[in-house]
Amino acid sequence: MTDRILEFLRNRREDGPCLVLDLDVVRENYISFARALPDTRVFYAVKANPDPRVLELLARLGSCFDTASVVEIEQALAAGASADRISYGNTIKKERDIMRAYELGVRLFAVDCEAEVEKIARAAPGSKVFCRILCSGAGAEWPLSRKFGCSPEMAPRVLEHAHRLGLVAFGLSFHVGSQQRNPYMWDSALKASAAIFRDLADRGIALQMVNLGGGFPTRYLKSVPAVKAYAQSILGSLRKHFGNHIPETIIEPGRGMVGNAGVIEAEVVLISRKSEEDKVKWVYLDIGKFNGLAETMDEMIRYPIKTPFDGDATEPCVLAGPSCDSVDVLYEKEPYFLPISLEIGSKVLIEGTGAYTTTYSSVGFNGFPPLKSYVI
Amino acid sequence: MTDRILEFLRNRREDGPCLVLDLDVVRENYISFARALPDTRVFYAVKANPDPRVLELLARLGSCFDTASVVEIEQALAAGASADRISYGNTIKKERDIMRAYELGVRLFAVDCEAEVEKIARAAPGSKVFCRILCSGAGAEWPLSRKFGCSPEMAPRVLEHAHRLGLVAFGLSFHVGSQQRNPYMWDSALKASAAIFRDLADRGIALQMVNLGGGFPTRYLKSVPAVKAYAQSILGSLRKHFGNHIPETIIEPGRGMVGNAGVIEAEVVLISRKSEEDKVKWVYLDIGKFNGLAETMDEMIRYPIKTPFDGDATEPCVLAGPSCDSVDVLYEKEPYFLPISLEIGSKVLIEGTGAYTTTYSSVGFNGFPPLKSYVI
Repeated sequence: MTDRILEFLRNRREDGPCLVLDLDVVRENYISFARALPDTRVFYAVKANPDPRVLELLARLGSCFDTASVVEIEQALAAGASADRISYGNTIKKERDIMRAYELGVRLFAVDCEAEVEKIARAAPGSKVFCRILCSGAGAEWPLSRKFGCSPEMAPRVLEHAHRLGLVAFGLSFHVGSQQRNPYMWDSALKASAAIFRDLADRGIALQMVNLGGGFPTRYLKSVPAVKAYAQSILGSLRKHFGNHIPETIIEPGRGMVGNAGVIEAEVVLISRKSEEDKVKWVYLDIGKFNGLAETMDEMIRYPIKTPFDGDATEPCVLAGPSCDSVDVLYEKEPYFLPISLEIGSKVLIEGTGAYTTTYSSVGFNGFPPLKSYVI
Repeated sequence: MTDRILEFLRNRREDGPCLVLDLDVVRENYISFARALPDTRVFYAVKANPDPRVLELLARLGSCFDTASVVEIEQALAAGASADRISYGNTIKKERDIMRAYELGVRLFAVDCEAEVEKIARAAPGSKVFCRILCSGAGAEWPLSRKFGCSPEMAPRVLEHAHRLGLVAFGLSFHVGSQQRNPYMWDSALKASAAIFRDLADRGIALQMVNLGGGFPTRYLKSVPAVKAYAQSILGSLRKHFGNHIPETIIEPGRGMVGNAGVIEAEVVLISRKSEEDKVKWVYLDIGKFNGLAETMDEMIRYPIKTPFDGDATEPCVLAGPSCDSVDVLYEKEPYFLPISLEIGSKVLIEGTGAYTTTYSSVGFNGFPPLKSYVI
């Protein structure tokens, strides 16, 4: 929460929920990453928030970009990034999208199987590929499934196949899980990576790069370690496992870059109880799972919420969105404590909402428009 | 799946996943509902699919409309429905939205607590209100939470409050759960409704209407009873609990009206395994949770999928979407059996996707556009 955001909201006159994102905070976050890991290139995960002004700022600061689709590549290019600063980091790509990316100048691609290597060899000849490996997401608030990556045992075969097909077997990537609160989680993945580097060196293939992924957390209700703590832990693991041959590294922060830069203002639409004896109040906001707060799915991300009545006595509330959909409930299993004095019509501020909110919005479920966004 | 849809897809040249919806099927569904329950007014749940051509067809056929927001009210009006055929069925409404609806001519509103009654009394004086009561969603594939409705014991107080404030205490509503496969589930809610009718009659308030809600299923992988079976069961329960004083009734089908009218065509982007020993294949489509298939959440809705290789031997597959998001997995806990011969680039047809697909699409998560839709 910054004074600039509060000032903006004081003067706003439009109706409906909105996100306000402060570019000063994004700048500070970028500088923190760049200082903590001076030898590591930062690839901002565009999917976290592809607002043009965010991308333009980061492009000016020297950031590179991790993209998930041709549209995101075009957004990064439009923001002023050159193609050599763009990674096509999605392991799932149509061959014609790879071709389009190649035409746009992109030469760095993620893979996690031989079939994807073959597409890239055909559609983007001579490009660099890095192979994503599976690693445990223990300690993450949003652990990743096995959707991306192959077992570390399979990676050498995938990269050797790339080498054989004329691609540059460039390196490895992994992801320790989003909102990872344990800085030591990178260690086991780096250990596995170093073993793969040695294995491929024995086969005459010199990998050069380790993509350390994202996972850097933003502060929601629980406090999280500073970027510096992550950097120290990662550098320690790199030295431990790679000795004097420390590879080129890149990171892909998304949430860690923009999460704490944004605040959503929402309105209390209704407060009610389901029966006379009900101990828990229901509080309905004009924002929910389908117009911005998709990451409350399974109550995984628990946002801090500020109200005009903070400091008053609180009581447990179920917090829900405005749509006619019963799954549009934000916090129910673990009720949220809100001031007893909260009223219908009160404005609330939902903090840490700069990442993974605007683009998750539905196009118009229940007739509610997508989340409005102001970048200041 | 209809010949018209297949013919349309044969001639389509654009890239990317799309929904094709056959209006002939919607017409048949409307007629089935109207014939099975001739004394019941049909309020189509606009949120299921608000495509203008669907709304125009239903308006021409004489349907009424259940809406969740002012935007949906405007959509129904634009399709040719008069305001007296529109219900503002969301129990969670901003007072200024109620006022706007009232200005547009709407006079029928849902409530489930006294606070909402007070908003309506101020913003839409003299209107009819019906009170939603909670009922068990047992037997539904998508059981509703306690988000909407109050306990049956509380409903008389809510309606009496409406009466006192000059509103017309018009009736009751309930929802037996979406995709309800047991036609007898309406019975206990109708029993509770009849008791409330008697209670309010004793207080001098004559309720007139029971809104039987939606819940009418569409056929996914499991077969479902025909509309006629639901009608017989409901009429039986009405007679049993209301005797000779059967109230006016309305139904709000959404999925049951458009679900089986739509088919999504998607493409296999990648097929891979996570390790050499993996028994389960991963099949990635160009559609997932964020661009149309949100209802695979918790693997609740299991769509039938047709491939060009049906009839060949099958094997268990994890089915996932194209985005860089680990939750974008459609079926994993219970793998989906697909032909071993399925290939990267194969087109597949996902049936029963006319409802709750297009509007759930995100505006552009990962740079993927919202689901395209063709109504034929």
